[in-house]
Amino acid sequence: MSSSAATSLPAVYSSLTKQMSTPILLSQSSALLHWDSMVTMPQTDAHHKARGKQQAALAGVIHSQKTDPEIGVLIDQIKTLLDAGESGLSPRELANYRLMEKQYTETSRIPQDLSEKRAALESEAYMSWTKARDAKDYGLFRETLGKCFSTAGEIAGLRQPGADRYAAMLDEFEPGMSPERIDEIFGTVQAELQPLIKRVLEAERQVDASCLEGEGKFPLAGQKELCDMIVEWCGFEGRQDVSVHPFTTSFSSSDVRITSRFTDSEFYQGLAGTVHETGHGLYEAALGKEPEAVNSALSMGVHESQSLFWERHVGLSRGFWKRWGGEARSRLEGLEGVADEDIYRAVNKVKRSFIRVEADELTYPLHVILRYEIERDIVGGKMDVADLPRVWKERMRELLGVEVEDDANGCLQDVHWSGLAIGYFPTYCLGAIMAAQLAHYMRLELDVDALVEGGESGPIREWLREKVWRHGSGEGSMDELLERAVGERLNERYYLDYLREKYEDIYGL
Amino acid sequence: MSSSAATSLPAVYSSLTKQMSTPILLSQSSALLHWDSMVTMPQTDAHHKARGKQQAALAGVIHSQKTDPEIGVLIDQIKTLLDAGESGLSPRELANYRLMEKQYTETSRIPQDLSEKRAALESEAYMSWTKARDAKDYGLFRETLGKCFSTAGEIAGLRQPGADRYAAMLDEFEPGMSPERIDEIFGTVQAELQPLIKRVLEAERQVDASCLEGEGKFPLAGQKELCDMIVEWCGFEGRQDVSVHPFTTSFSSSDVRITSRFTDSEFYQGLAGTVHETGHGLYEAALGKEPEAVNSALSMGVHESQSLFWERHVGLSRGFWKRWGGEARSRLEGLEGVADEDIYRAVNKVKRSFIRVEADELTYPLHVILRYEIERDIVGGKMDVADLPRVWKERMRELLGVEVEDDANGCLQDVHWSGLAIGYFPTYCLGAIMAAQLAHYMRLELDVDALVEGGESGPIREWLREKVWRHGSGEGSMDELLERAVGERLNERYYLDYLREKYEDIYGL
Repeated sequence: MSSSAATSLPAVYSSLTKQMSTPILLSQSSALLHWDSMVTMPQTDAHHKARGKQQAALAGVIHSQKTDPEIGVLIDQIKTLLDAGESGLSPRELANYRLMEKQYTETSRIPQDLSEKRAALESEAYMSWTKARDAKDYGLFRETLGKCFSTAGEIAGLRQPGADRYAAMLDEFEPGMSPERIDEIFGTVQAELQPLIKRVLEAERQVDASCLEGEGKFPLAGQKELCDMIVEWCGFEGRQDVSVHPFTTSFSSSDVRITSRFTDSEFYQGLAGTVHETGHGLYEAALGKEPEAVNSALSMGVHESQSLFWERHVGLSRGFWKRWGGEARSRLEGLEGVADEDIYRAVNKVKRSFIRVEADELTYPLHVILRYEIERDIVGGKMDVADLPRVWKERMRELLGVEVEDDANGCLQDVHWSGLAIGYFPTYCLGAIMAAQLAHYMRLELDVDALVEGGESGPIREWLREKVWRHGSGEGSMDELLERAVGERLNERYYLDYLREKYEDIYGL
Repeated sequence: MSSSAATSLPAVYSSLTKQMSTPILLSQSSALLHWDSMVTMPQTDAHHKARGKQQAALAGVIHSQKTDPEIGVLIDQIKTLLDAGESGLSPRELANYRLMEKQYTETSRIPQDLSEKRAALESEAYMSWTKARDAKDYGLFRETLGKCFSTAGEIAGLRQPGADRYAAMLDEFEPGMSPERIDEIFGTVQAELQPLIKRVLEAERQVDASCLEGEGKFPLAGQKELCDMIVEWCGFEGRQDVSVHPFTTSFSSSDVRITSRFTDSEFYQGLAGTVHETGHGLYEAALGKEPEAVNSALSMGVHESQSLFWERHVGLSRGFWKRWGGEARSRLEGLEGVADEDIYRAVNKVKRSFIRVEADELTYPLHVILRYEIERDIVGGKMDVADLPRVWKERMRELLGVEVEDDANGCLQDVHWSGLAIGYFPTYCLGAIMAAQLAHYMRLELDVDALVEGGESGPIREWLREKVWRHGSGEGSMDELLERAVGERLNERYYLDYLREKYEDIYGL
């Protein structure tokens, strides 16, 4: 082996990239095991138990591959070469190196036994959570939830020693976003939306959404056919399947799959979920093909901005229903004789509700803010998990004016914390804000309404590809991405203006 | 750690079993990646390329997990303890230990780079083989096939140094079976079947199988429905899907899946494949659930005996068509007005043919014998791969009396050698012999015909569970299994008697 060849910067970089491709490829395999367990695997305890063992074995191997000391040696070599002023790596390669360095450093700080403890806890907590939710009894989950918070905190503390604990958790899902910044943004959002929601709910001209409900009135085949047409129109080319909870998964940018769920007694939730996942899917499919760190989505908030762009700024728009209202009516008995404009109004109806995932666009951010405040306070030691049901009920009353009847409709409704995904919730609202900001700038260049109404999605997709998808992977923050895409960092102004104008129009305010 | 606890035989055994469960669980994951690529994954080059990388990463990790030196340390400890007369392991645990020891010893002899070379060669050879087959030009595959034989030989030589090369290859698929024994068995089979085939083909009373063919006469939905009923009747409970090549896969005995393929212009190949895979599936589903070496199928020949038992001794029996003829007629236009007995005769029609997988029960063994002789002679240095097309044509003429027109219908029809599965072909015929032997002994205890005709499968399944499945995993040879099950080792007499009686009856000889 020529020693100069082996130690040139590009050669070492290439060895490092090759070495780190293994855990990425194994993670893609793990994603398939998960997809299969949700979509194709028979749903029995025995199947899930066997799959759990396979996933645990894979997770153990992925952890040890990610923390292989050989990676540390290669990273040190690159550091030395870079410090010595060596060049030869492109900006993209440098970004890829920094991502690998960060991932290796942070993962190596987690001992194998803590990593295994985490995996076992996730599995235990998921079962404990479903049991408690079914029994509507938070008491059955409290102790386990405490362990979820403490273990997630321990891991975050190891990953980023010295950093604020919640900030470190947030960084895993939304790099570069601080709790202080979120406090500020969410403060403005809450302050402006609460009075707007009040005006909407007290408006004289209310919305009738009864056309969206009715036992057996929305045949599954008709909904599926309509969704297939819409997904194709959006330009998504991957598999579409049915699962209990809709999700998007990617086994590489060549093989992105989405799932939906439908019920024949309600129209729109199935379509909304499909269009939402399509947005995630289009983004994933636009990432680079090679198994490299730099080819992963930039952040959860950016991901959500793409799903919400398609769900809200396309699927919940007036133009969309002018285009698709007829197709829906011809397939779904329940919509017979309902005008496009009335479908548009119905799918945008605002109401106080308990469940985040079923909430309308206007009240949704308050559900997120509630969760953000609670998880931030528990991690910060200002609140005890034992007080969760009480605090949840109080804040639901204050924020949304609803009386939570039981824990199932309250603090037990979300799976996230049982999966140790703490610091994740705020990304839903950040994504919504980013989506509105993108929509604002897109409208300066494209007549989006006319395109959607005319059935033309190409220019919208190309705008997103150019502004977001092209830069939307690897290293950087949501702010940096937005600066490049539209010239300014995340700004909630566009989101609040969009919501005010839209709902004043619908409710005749 | 208490040193006595850590070094007691059961404790070390338990550590070893735990350690070796990881590569088993990873292999189950790899099986899912394969199943998905055949059943659910979109069939594009980009998808297959991405999946290939995932499979290669997993294969690399499985190899290094199987050869982890820590395993060697544990095995040495157990050896020492056993030599010192320590007890505490059950016979099943001892068998599991011996299997792990054999696997570790043989796998450790294969260097990582040879293992990777093999994986790359398999992928290259598969593509080269499909290209050559499509072009009907063996010349395009010859060089690669040479590499397949030499690499498989190199691996077998390392696995079992000192052993006869072909015997070592055979041992991978059929432990305990020697080439000499196969020569003897196949010699008798060929000697008795060739004159029987001649008599059948020259018989006055020929079979009319035209009812099984006709453009569009066998709607896929009807075939699928019929197969679903039959699979359920056989007692198989796993998933059934459609793929280009039918296969069975197991991700644990809780999650066994089979696939079939159907065409609307022919009846019976789809059903035969389904019943065949059902036989494999029932066996897999009966194995132990834990990820242990001892819970794997005993050999490929034993596996094939189970698929062929159901395909031939149930699905090709007169009683089966008395039970299912009406169900088939009511769903398949092409069978309208065809009597049960005529369907029975049609599905058992004997004819000279080129393609092994489409061959009837009587000529099938000669296809296998041809491949066995060729691979044995190439490995033994008595034949060069360059001569394959010529030898193939000559032997097809001698054995089956057919003139092979081109390589696609000749030496390029099977995928096995491109996958380095050399020593595999004989297990097809050994399985057929074992199936007939089991059927003979089952008939001494059960009225199989009456059960099948009466639609009762339970006693047949229970007999197989008791005699075969219960002992059919882990350690041992086909002969040992048969000794336990029916009191004698593999004996081709029952097979030849079965064939002679059955075809003399059908052809009125």
